[in-house]
This record gives sequence, structure tokens and C-alpha cells, in this order.
Amino acid sequence: MKSDIEIASQAQMKPIRYIAEKLSLTEDDWEPYGHYKAKLSVDLLEKLSDRPSGKVILTTSINPTPAGEGKSTVTVGLGQALNHLNKKAIIALREPSLGPTMGIKGGAAGGGYAQVIPMDEINLHFTGDIHAITSANNALAAFIDNHIQHGNEMHIDPRRIGWKRVMDINDRALREVVVGLGGPGKGIPRQDGFNITVASELMAILCLAANLQDMKRRIGKIVIGYTYEKQPVNVEQLGFEGALTLLLKDAIKPNLVQTLENTPALIHGGPFANIAHGCNSVMATKLASKLGDYVVTEAGFGADLGAEKFLNIKTRAAGLEPDAVVIVATIRALKMHGGLKKDQLNSQDLEALNKGMENLKKHIETIEQFQLPFIVAVNKFPADTQEEIDFLTKWCEKHSVEVSVVDVFAEGGQGGLDLAGKVVRLCEAKTTSLHYSYELDDPIELKINKIAKKIYGAGGVEFSSKASKQMVQMEQLGYGNLPVCMAKTQYSLSDRPEKLGRPKDFTITVKEFHPSVGAGFIVALTGDVMTMPGLPKYPAALNMDITEEGVIKGLF
Amino acid sequence: MKSDIEIASQAQMKPIRYIAEKLSLTEDDWEPYGHYKAKLSVDLLEKLSDRPSGKVILTTSINPTPAGEGKSTVTVGLGQALNHLNKKAIIALREPSLGPTMGIKGGAAGGGYAQVIPMDEINLHFTGDIHAITSANNALAAFIDNHIQHGNEMHIDPRRIGWKRVMDINDRALREVVVGLGGPGKGIPRQDGFNITVASELMAILCLAANLQDMKRRIGKIVIGYTYEKQPVNVEQLGFEGALTLLLKDAIKPNLVQTLENTPALIHGGPFANIAHGCNSVMATKLASKLGDYVVTEAGFGADLGAEKFLNIKTRAAGLEPDAVVIVATIRALKMHGGLKKDQLNSQDLEALNKGMENLKKHIETIEQFQLPFIVAVNKFPADTQEEIDFLTKWCEKHSVEVSVVDVFAEGGQGGLDLAGKVVRLCEAKTTSLHYSYELDDPIELKINKIAKKIYGAGGVEFSSKASKQMVQMEQLGYGNLPVCMAKTQYSLSDRPEKLGRPKDFTITVKEFHPSVGAGFIVALTGDVMTMPGLPKYPAALNMDITEEGVIKGLF
Repeated sequence: MKSDIEIASQAQMKPIRYIAEKLSLTEDDWEPYGHYKAKLSVDLLEKLSDRPSGKVILTTSINPTPAGEGKSTVTVGLGQALNHLNKKAIIALREPSLGPTMGIKGGAAGGGYAQVIPMDEINLHFTGDIHAITSANNALAAFIDNHIQHGNEMHIDPRRIGWKRVMDINDRALREVVVGLGGPGKGIPRQDGFNITVASELMAILCLAANLQDMKRRIGKIVIGYTYEKQPVNVEQLGFEGALTLLLKDAIKPNLVQTLENTPALIHGGPFANIAHGCNSVMATKLASKLGDYVVTEAGFGADLGAEKFLNIKTRAAGLEPDAVVIVATIRALKMHGGLKKDQLNSQDLEALNKGMENLKKHIETIEQFQLPFIVAVNKFPADTQEEIDFLTKWCEKHSVEVSVVDVFAEGGQGGLDLAGKVVRLCEAKTTSLHYSYELDDPIELKINKIAKKIYGAGGVEFSSKASKQMVQMEQLGYGNLPVCMAKTQYSLSDRPEKLGRPKDFTITVKEFHPSVGAGFIVALTGDVMTMPGLPKYPAALNMDITEEGVIKGLF
Repeated sequence: MKSDIEIASQAQMKPIRYIAEKLSLTEDDWEPYGHYKAKLSVDLLEKLSDRPSGKVILTTSINPTPAGEGKSTVTVGLGQALNHLNKKAIIALREPSLGPTMGIKGGAAGGGYAQVIPMDEINLHFTGDIHAITSANNALAAFIDNHIQHGNEMHIDPRRIGWKRVMDINDRALREVVVGLGGPGKGIPRQDGFNITVASELMAILCLAANLQDMKRRIGKIVIGYTYEKQPVNVEQLGFEGALTLLLKDAIKPNLVQTLENTPALIHGGPFANIAHGCNSVMATKLASKLGDYVVTEAGFGADLGAEKFLNIKTRAAGLEPDAVVIVATIRALKMHGGLKKDQLNSQDLEALNKGMENLKKHIETIEQFQLPFIVAVNKFPADTQEEIDFLTKWCEKHSVEVSVVDVFAEGGQGGLDLAGKVVRLCEAKTTSLHYSYELDDPIELKINKIAKKIYGAGGVEFSSKASKQMVQMEQLGYGNLPVCMAKTQYSLSDRPEKLGRPKDFTITVKEFHPSVGAGFIVALTGDVMTMPGLPKYPAALNMDITEEGVIKGLF
């Protein structure tokens, strides 16, 4: 089979004008960025507010493994398949970060015949949104150190600055740094560190903002640190919310592209799914629901992280709820959850598969708790045997769980027709409504206990002494009613990445909190959560190239 | 009078399609970036190579002062004026850096009725070129530290890494940092520092490259540091030239915009004029000369820095030479060179003006040395008296120097008609050809002596012991035949910013060298050259905002 970049570069792309016209957009509603990308007007959502909203389908998955689950691929394939059924479907995805692209992943735009295109541009700088966030984030950091340098009127305690600089690259050497060295003309020395851009609170804000002015309001509320008197200092007090909003005025406009089958796709915002909520922007998802009859959207990592935050955080900010949930699983990944190593996955192993089903079962129970209709999508890989697939589908039938085997990677939308048909019926038959895991006025400790027990299946939660103190402080500061954004490893239901399958009787340890007041949530950090990834010994970048004829290599 | 952003936002912008069509570009030759910006095809220059080249007009100035010279304003105004005379003129400018925009300058796109537009977008993220350079620069930095972390096969000496990280922001706290702290998982601790992005060698490479493959070749030759055995390590040895070129594949395409009077403008590349050569890209300048009969282009700072490097470095790389040079001066700035303070400039002072003329005189002599036709453009300010202007024009007549008083700020092209007419005649009457200040095969020491004596009027050059050692090393490594890129303060002809006017009998001190082998020059650092600026106490960003109606404030 051809590589992703080969398939993508041989695609019959339509000019973006054609996609925009298919969505009945007028000239004022969009701006071209090259011939195959567009930004939609920041006012479009307001303009369409009277339209009825289409159905929202959320794609999530089991806990990710190195075997690959293909959640984005299924999301794109399902969107394409819905169009085969003459449903007007739009895909809403996150923007890929350059860090993982240059490092391990080599790209993140679906795969095979279920990709969004132009794949190379989406994976590289796209329309510049992430770069705008990097600029705004680092401008704020410079403004803070500059304020201290020029007399520190606000009494900011340099030891209590929470606002970190960012880069959209995996650079472990920047995790812990000392800045401001070199004497009085070069700032005040202090310990600092860099996050990857997609972990910036500004990214979360852009994704949760209702519109430009709401973004400005949220930016003003960002707590950048504390004074020597331990009072929070926010951006509004420093006076930079206008400049930062100006820097993000185009980044907030949703981006329109297409899939290999010319299905419209909005790709906008890409917050990290550990320190942030891991979903594409509220504006893009809502806009997609106004422009189409069906929106297929995705939340980061497994249902314990991405879907939990989509459902408890994003739906609250957006005022929307999914009409159906798709839980993506692969035979390979389930076998890894059942104990196999990555090099053992190519031969049939029903015992490992059976054991690994426990991971899927937990995520099914989780979605049931939210009282949402759902279906399991088995994303087919070449080495899967018919017996393994039969085992999985029979298991589902036995447990009265809807299931569909898809092969959108090899067949595009055609490979997801069964799934699409079943999803349409699920949406139409929906009678329940979203049941949150916690109430906003639950105390912070109770919120976290509810998430840990209901969603992760934990026995309990422990709080470090630092975290316990911070909980009291945050409730005193009035942040107690915000939702909690859990920062936890994506690999396990627990906070220990090596515990695959369905761990039992474990405790979640909350080490510390970080209030993201602008984004509107409190981050609870568990285990060893990395907010600046590192590169492997041989980064994907080593294989990247562009030839004299303009042929691009090494993206996948 | 209205502010720059008010004038810009009330402009009658033509859709960029109109500007492209006026230049007879076909659909394949350009891509839209919004409705008012475009990127031109990377192959366009090759496609037009058989066309005759238009005349090239270089704009330079006296040494800049806080009083303002308005070199960009005159450049834009002259381009507009040439069109009034029915000459097909195109303007070629540098891209503004976000750092100074957010800090002191609030923008850099000309002024008054001589601006390039859309001014807000040009000043903010434009088409993302500078962000692409930031990404590529910092990806390379991460690759280097990652190489060391994973075993350091190349034996890179962490104490001899010359490749710095960059940000497009003024952030003094990043001038000197320690990275890699926090233990074995977080890299190797080493002293490091950040430059502003426009000081990156990648920016210089993008500006000097003939095409995409030449850019790749140059990137491969970048020396990132030295091994423990003191051998240079380049990017090709590390294997990342393909990935970095891929990251810059769109940034290398020249950007097309327009002026307030719809004159086409190519704005592309913006290397710092101290550590780099300070001119817009070779590709843009050459393309402009193929698309128009006249190109008006600008070099950074005064003639001692920008024009010297344009003439000795850029013309050699580009294979072009100016047909005429415009030396911009203002009465106000000349009076500062004559000893006045900034708050004394609003009343007439012929004595100070007379004294300050020495600075202009030196730059006139410099351009005469290059054997190029030139004219002095007096950029009018409201407080200038008729007597002062008469003094200046009579001085020019007495010295047989062409002169023209322009008021393009208040009148647009109309205010530069006299200048435009005279420039056309200068170009047509040109008989001499460009005389370089030094030969490429002069030893490094001799090249620097020639620049210092001929261009700065210095008595001699001193080399620190470090610099002397480096000169020997660089000649041994085979870099001896590269041109020299002087890093010197822009404020004075000497390397001491406080020495205004025309200092005499001074010595230039070269402290150290930095070989920019990819860019194709050796940087000689003199005095205290800052490659990462700082912010003032009240940065321009404090006044920036975007209102509910989308009105932008604080850019100028």
C-alpha cells in the first residue's frame, strides 16, 4: 500500500472555494489561505445562530498503545461515510503540533484513505494558529520579566511565576532552565521552564472561547503568578489583554479544509489532552453543527482523558452535547492491553485479546455513565484474523453493545458505511441526555474523587500535602466552582503508564494544582505528566525532505 | 493628522487578485493569503529569467537617531511617485519583526500616506515567514541537544555550540540562560542564550538563497558548533537539512501586498542589520526587477551598515547592482547629529544643522566610493523651517549633490514627484558600475580594515586576542574568502553609539567572529552589539487592542 503522503499528494483536491460554496458560504464568510485552506469569519457563528444545530458525534478510544488505534482515521472515515449516505457531514478535528510531527509521529491528519488534506500543510505550519499562540504566550512571559526588571510595581514574586514560555517543538533541554543570567541589564535570574505550545493556557482559552471578546475576557483573567503577599496577579492587572487578543485575532478563526473524498473538515485548536482538555475549538464544533447535519469530532487520547474532559468541560462551555459516541478499538491494541509486546501482535492470540477486552469494557461503562448512545468501532488492521474479529463482535453482541468493523484506512468512506448507518440510527433514537460526572459546586476534592472512581475505576485519591494546601487556597480565591482538568498519563486508566488493561484497587495521587482561570478550569496534576516532550534518538525529521521537483518526503 | 492605523484602515485596498493581474501573473504564479496578501510561486523567478531586468533603486540613510528618518516611508512614497510618472515601479521591503512592534516601534510599514497595507497584518504575523524561521531554528537547536543526549556520536562539545535558540520578541531575560537542568532525563546542563528570530542565520540564508535548493544547500553548510577535537560540525553531518528546508518551503516564497495607492510591494525576509546583512530577500528583489521597470528597495539602518552590506554582500549573492541610491535625511536627525537633544528639535537651529551635515557628508562620500549615482532625499517634518530646508538644499547645490525635498508622509506619491523624476534621470544617465569596498580574496583582516577606513572613516582596527585567534582558524577552515558582515551599532559611524555626527580618529574594535557559513559570510562583532533587544518600561503593546467591532488600536 502507498504511504500517507503519497496518497495525500495524489488526491483530487478541490479548490477550497468549491468546498466553501458547497457549504453555502458567501464571499464575506471566508478568506483563502492558499488554494486549499480557508479561514472562516469570526462573526460567522453569530450570523448562523438561528439555524438548527446538527447532530454531534464524539469519537473516543480505549487507552492508546504503541500498536495504534487510529481514532483520527476513524473520525475522518466516518465523516466520509456519512456523505456516502447523503448525510451532510462535517469533520471537526484538532490542529497537529509540530513537536510530535518532527519527533515520533511524523504527522497527525488521519491515515490511508481517511485523511484530511493538504496533509503536508496541515502538519507543518497550517494557517499559523499555533505560531500565533507561541508568540502571544512568549510575549506575555517577556512582559512579566520586563515588569519586574523595570521596578516591579505589582510586587510579583519571581519565585511564584506560573506562566511558562512555550515552543512548538519537543525540546527536553528546555524543561528546566534558569533565565535572566548575565547581570543587571539582563533581567532577574530565576528558575523557569518551557512547555510545548499546545500545553499553553492560551491554547485552551482559544478552544473554549465563545467569540473574540470572550477570548479577551478570558485572557484578562489568566493568573500569571502571585505577589510577595501571595495574591494572584492576572493579565488584566498588567494591561496586556488587548495586545494578546490582537495577536490571536486570526488564530481564533476556524480553518476549513477537506478530506481525500472532499468532505469538509474544520481543523481548529489543539490543546494537549493531559494538561489541557484535548479537544478542538468550541467555535469550530458549533460552527460545524450549524453548517452540517452531522459533526464528527474527536477528543484526545482514551475516553478516561479526552472524552471525560470533552463531556465535563467542553460541553459545559459550549452548551452542546454529543448525540452519539464512537469508541475506537483495534485488535492489536487490545492484545497489548492483554499483555502482549509490540512484536507479538502479528499472530492470532484470542487469550490476550480476551484479557485486553477489560480495557474496552471500562470505557464502555464510562460512556454508559454519561448516558450517551454509543457504538464500538473496530478499526481493522491487515494482521487481524477473522477469528479475532468474530471474537470481538460476538463479545459485543453478548453484552448488547453496538459494534461495527471499519476499514476506512484501506477503503475510505466506503469502509465505514456500516458504522455510519448505525451511528445515524443511534443519533435518531437518542432519548437520554448527558449526565455529568460531577456538579460544578462539588468541592474540588469531591470532583476529583468522582472522576477517579467513576471514570478511572480507582479505589481512592490521595493528595500531596502541597496539593491539599493548594485546594484550600483555590477555594479561598474563588476558583472552587471551576471544573477540574485532570492531567494524567494517557496510557493507563491509573496514573502509572505501565498498568495496561483494567487495573483495579489503585489510588490516584494528585501532586499539585495549577489554576487555569482564563481557560476556566483547575488542572490537577497526577503521576509524572510531561508538558514538554522529548525527541527519540532518530527523530522523524531525519527522513523529511523536499526534492527539486517539490516532492515532499517523510510525513506520514 | 490621522494616525497610521487610521489611515491604513480607511485605505481603498484592492483585492490582491487585482494587483496580481496588474503584474500579468497567472493563476499558477501566486496563492492568496486572505484577500489582500499573496505568496508568489517559488518557481516564478526561474520562469521569468529571460525577461530584461528593471532598474534597481536602493534607499539608505544617515545614521538613525530617535528623531526619525523615515527611510521606509520615503521608499514607499518613491515607489508610489514613480507610478504617478507612469513608470511601472515595485517596492521591495523587509518584513517587520514582532519584537520591536510590541516593544517600541509599534510597527514598521512606512507612515502617513506612504504605507504598505494591510498594515496590521504585515506588522503582526503576516504570512508566517518569521514564525517558520523560529520553528526551523529551534527545531535545529532541539536536534542538537537531542543528539548529545542520545550518546553524542558526533562528539559535539556542549561548550562550543554556536547555534542559539530564537524568539520573535524582545526578551532580555533570555539573553543568557542555562538549559538542560533537572537531571539526566532533561538534557545536559549548558550555558546558552536566545537571539531575536531576525538575527537567526536561517533568516540570512532565506534572504540570500537563489532558490529552494540553494537554500537547502546553504542550510546544510551551517556550522552549529565544534567537536571536542575543535572540528566544525554542520547541519548536513547531522542530517537535518531536508527537514529544515521543508519547514521553510513556504517562507521562501516572496509575499505580494500593495501600498495605500495600490502600488505593488514585495515584502520578504527581514534579517537584522547588525548581526546579519539587513536587506530583504534576493528572490524578492530579483523578482521585482523582472515584474517592474523600477524596483525601490531598502537596506537597514544607515549607509555605513545597511547599504555597505547590500552593496558588498547582497549584490554579490544576487548578481545585481543598484542603478541609483537615495540617501534619506531629515532636518531633525541632522540637528541631533549636530548636538541637539530630542526635546530641542522643534525650533530652528542652523548652527546645529550645519554641524550635523557632517554625518550626511560622510554617507555621501561612501556612496561616491561605490561609484553609484545618488540623490539626497530630505524627508520633510512639520517643524522644519523654510530656512533650514533652504540651508540644506543650498549645501547640496554647493557640493554638486542632487537633492529633493519630499513630503510623502502627508501627500503620498504626490509628495515625491520631484524625487521620482530625478531618480529616473539618474538611472538613465548611469555610466559607472558598482565598485566593491574589498575583494573576496583579501585576507579577513584587510577586508575589515577597508570597511572601517573607507566606510566608517576610522583610523584603524583593533582585534581582541580572541578575534585574532579566530581569524587564523577561519582562514584555516577555508572561510577566508567569504565577505565580512559587520555587526556594529547603527547609531554612530564608530562602534560607540554615543558618538554622533562624524567622529574622527577612532578605532574599531573587533571582539569576536561568528562564521555564518550557510549564509555565506563571516560576522565580525564590534562594540556591544545586542542580538536580543529588551522592552521599554511601557511597551507599545500596552496601547494595543481590538474592539468588539474589530477596530485595531495601538499599531503605528
